[in-house]
Amino acid sequence: MSKGVAYTITLRCQIQNKPGMLGKLATVIGDTGGNIGAVDAVRIEGDGALLVRDITVQVQDEQHGEQIITEINRIAGIAVLHTSDRVFLSHLGGKLAIQSRVPLKTRDDLSLAYTPGVARICRAIADDPEAVYTLTIKRNNVAIVSDGSAILGLGNLGAAAALPVMEGKAILLKEFADIDAYPICLQSQDPDVIVATVEQIAPVFGCINLEDIAAPKCFDVEERLIEALDIPVMHDDQHGTAVVVLAALRNALALVDKHIGDIRVVLNGAGAAGTAIIKTLHQASVGEITACDSKGIIAINDDRGPLPPAKQLIADMTNREGRRGSLTDALQGADVFIGVSVGNLLTPEMLQQMGNDAIVFALANPVPEGDPEWLVHYARVVATGRSDYANQINNALSFPGIYRGALDARAERITPGMLLAAAEALANVIAPAEISEDYIIPSVFNRSVVPAIASALAHEAVQSGVARRSL
Amino acid sequence: MSKGVAYTITLRCQIQNKPGMLGKLATVIGDTGGNIGAVDAVRIEGDGALLVRDITVQVQDEQHGEQIITEINRIAGIAVLHTSDRVFLSHLGGKLAIQSRVPLKTRDDLSLAYTPGVARICRAIADDPEAVYTLTIKRNNVAIVSDGSAILGLGNLGAAAALPVMEGKAILLKEFADIDAYPICLQSQDPDVIVATVEQIAPVFGCINLEDIAAPKCFDVEERLIEALDIPVMHDDQHGTAVVVLAALRNALALVDKHIGDIRVVLNGAGAAGTAIIKTLHQASVGEITACDSKGIIAINDDRGPLPPAKQLIADMTNREGRRGSLTDALQGADVFIGVSVGNLLTPEMLQQMGNDAIVFALANPVPEGDPEWLVHYARVVATGRSDYANQINNALSFPGIYRGALDARAERITPGMLLAAAEALANVIAPAEISEDYIIPSVFNRSVVPAIASALAHEAVQSGVARRSL
Repeated sequence: MSKGVAYTITLRCQIQNKPGMLGKLATVIGDTGGNIGAVDAVRIEGDGALLVRDITVQVQDEQHGEQIITEINRIAGIAVLHTSDRVFLSHLGGKLAIQSRVPLKTRDDLSLAYTPGVARICRAIADDPEAVYTLTIKRNNVAIVSDGSAILGLGNLGAAAALPVMEGKAILLKEFADIDAYPICLQSQDPDVIVATVEQIAPVFGCINLEDIAAPKCFDVEERLIEALDIPVMHDDQHGTAVVVLAALRNALALVDKHIGDIRVVLNGAGAAGTAIIKTLHQASVGEITACDSKGIIAINDDRGPLPPAKQLIADMTNREGRRGSLTDALQGADVFIGVSVGNLLTPEMLQQMGNDAIVFALANPVPEGDPEWLVHYARVVATGRSDYANQINNALSFPGIYRGALDARAERITPGMLLAAAEALANVIAPAEISEDYIIPSVFNRSVVPAIASALAHEAVQSGVARRSL
Repeated sequence: MSKGVAYTITLRCQIQNKPGMLGKLATVIGDTGGNIGAVDAVRIEGDGALLVRDITVQVQDEQHGEQIITEINRIAGIAVLHTSDRVFLSHLGGKLAIQSRVPLKTRDDLSLAYTPGVARICRAIADDPEAVYTLTIKRNNVAIVSDGSAILGLGNLGAAAALPVMEGKAILLKEFADIDAYPICLQSQDPDVIVATVEQIAPVFGCINLEDIAAPKCFDVEERLIEALDIPVMHDDQHGTAVVVLAALRNALALVDKHIGDIRVVLNGAGAAGTAIIKTLHQASVGEITACDSKGIIAINDDRGPLPPAKQLIADMTNREGRRGSLTDALQGADVFIGVSVGNLLTPEMLQQMGNDAIVFALANPVPEGDPEWLVHYARVVATGRSDYANQINNALSFPGIYRGALDARAERITPGMLLAAAEALANVIAPAEISEDYIIPSVFNRSVVPAIASALAHEAVQSGVARRSL
């Protein structure tokens, strides 16, 4: 599978200015597996003897890029002067800036925005605490909080290494939902410290987005912060993903003409996302869920001995039929497989155990539980987390609209009903007649997505009495 | 004294459309002490019988505005429909927004800025922690941290009411120094909690600006954070003010032709700013300082009994001559008075005690220790914190350049030498020939100020070995 633009490099090459040299260069790049994009002339050096060119090349990964450079440098008359990497270039200096919403060019401007004018705004908020929503950035602000303990699929890299992801999340919120979000990366990974710190910084923010915090502590941290704060707190890796999965499942079920109350879902992977998906499917009254972890079906009173609390919670919501055994056993006659586990664990034989019109969501990142190239031959509907195949389950589809709606309603918290409303709204962005095997979920660039989710979620917030503002 | 634009209101008035009505309206506003600015026609109503106008009026304060509205509504044929207040209008929705520095319009953009591209940036930082400065916002970021315990001159109003000031500080840093600063207002006012929280959020920031934290805990909080963190931590109310005072003093002394080593300074007000000014003057080798608080001259072994730690620190740096008594006693023969205390405590008689060519910095806010209208008759050079008189001592002159320089050098901390360099650079923005009684300190809108301070401070950071980056 191609890795796309994330591994495009630009090589500045100094080339002897004589016929045939570009051909040699292009041949070496092609032979080494590189895909040439743009070729630009930069300048002429040495009185015309040397030509400097920028060659943009798609490569598989960093090692592959190094290998191509080594091979080019072996050509007599060509030297790689410099390598630019589009990913690194795009991150230089970070991805966020602060923008002033008021002018500060004159003394009058200063008197309005700072002293003495600002003193009246401070007093107005001290007199009426709700005024903080109209007179400050709290109205439109989300803190993106991580301890860096579970960054993407990379694992525990700590606070500083988490920052580029949190910045990315912030610009997604800006671009898709016009939300002003700010990254907060915490030094400590102790759940007590995370909770205490977020409680302290909460006054500035309208919502708290927890991000890339490892399971099982993410459950505890989220629960305690929801309890402690009067603003919404959501761990996106859990609920953002669950909302998109439920939306995609609704449309997939419409396609195969099955009712959600009648189906059996096998969920593999009992981490943060898996647990939230189970909770959400449970709330959406899915017929039956069989949950598996790396040891097989999760069951109460199984041979493994007592379950840890997070798995006990799963067991309480799943496996009413008391199944035992492996993932393969679980898949016998199942309608839906949802994987949030590890790459390449499915086999064609396993999928053949499933019922008719099987639905397979292979969501492990970056390598799905099975390659979509063959999955499509064994399932009616296939979805993955990848952007290079149809039906990408991407939580960027849900979290911008969820926070937009929560801020619009000045919600005190996000209820399960609000998440179900968000999933329904996301599913409904695709009209029934448009739904197909290759189109059960809209693109993240579909501009209808965020307003649809935001509106449905905000209305549900008002309905359920957690909104501080009428719409 | 005029309060200026901070108390300008716009009244939308519905007026009977017949001759003489605007005259009546203007007369009532004038008689009530309001100053009319713009008069705009908005629309005609009732088939021409009524005219709606917006009248912009400068008023003394909110009560005064209310009084004017009451008087207008008493005029037959005129009704105030609506009042807009420029200060509140300029704060609606807050003063900051987040801006994305990278495009997010296509799937390629998303792959570069978010997954999968961002994973390589995370790994690069995990491999080389210093890379966080080139690949994230940390490079240009300042946290503006307050517990709201000493907001401007307003006192302890708490976290939410502090936010408008911190936002104001952030936009000043953006406008004057192109720094991306973010407000962090803390729920707790416990120094231990403040220190613990700032330690936790530090990974995202290049500097920490402490703001509006009450004395004496601000000393302890600042000292502990400087010790704990590897980025600069500065309490601006202390050091930002001290830098501007020292700069203004240098130029005032040049004017009266006195040497800093020969003068005696009386400082009144032993709070955060006063203590920092004493420290800075001490480091600048000022001849002698006599410090006073509300009880008079601060002296070791005085009749008051043992001094609290913060005042003991002041006593150790001041009053080598062992003076006792009141502020008036302290002023006997003094060269300089610096007040960071309360309004209107000076009298002409007190200033007559001072030496020739007296220099008076009456910096209490918003009301100076003496009205500049009469101060100028009893002192050669007068400075205040006010923008409506000459020589405004405003820490907005120093903190943008200080943080710009600290970020440019990637300083680990801000040393006393760096602050002295900043003060010298600020003083030197005014050429010796330009210095006059009315011009000892430049305007905050002088675009030479920030680069001059930043450059001097960054070079001193390199000299003193606290820079992580060569210039």
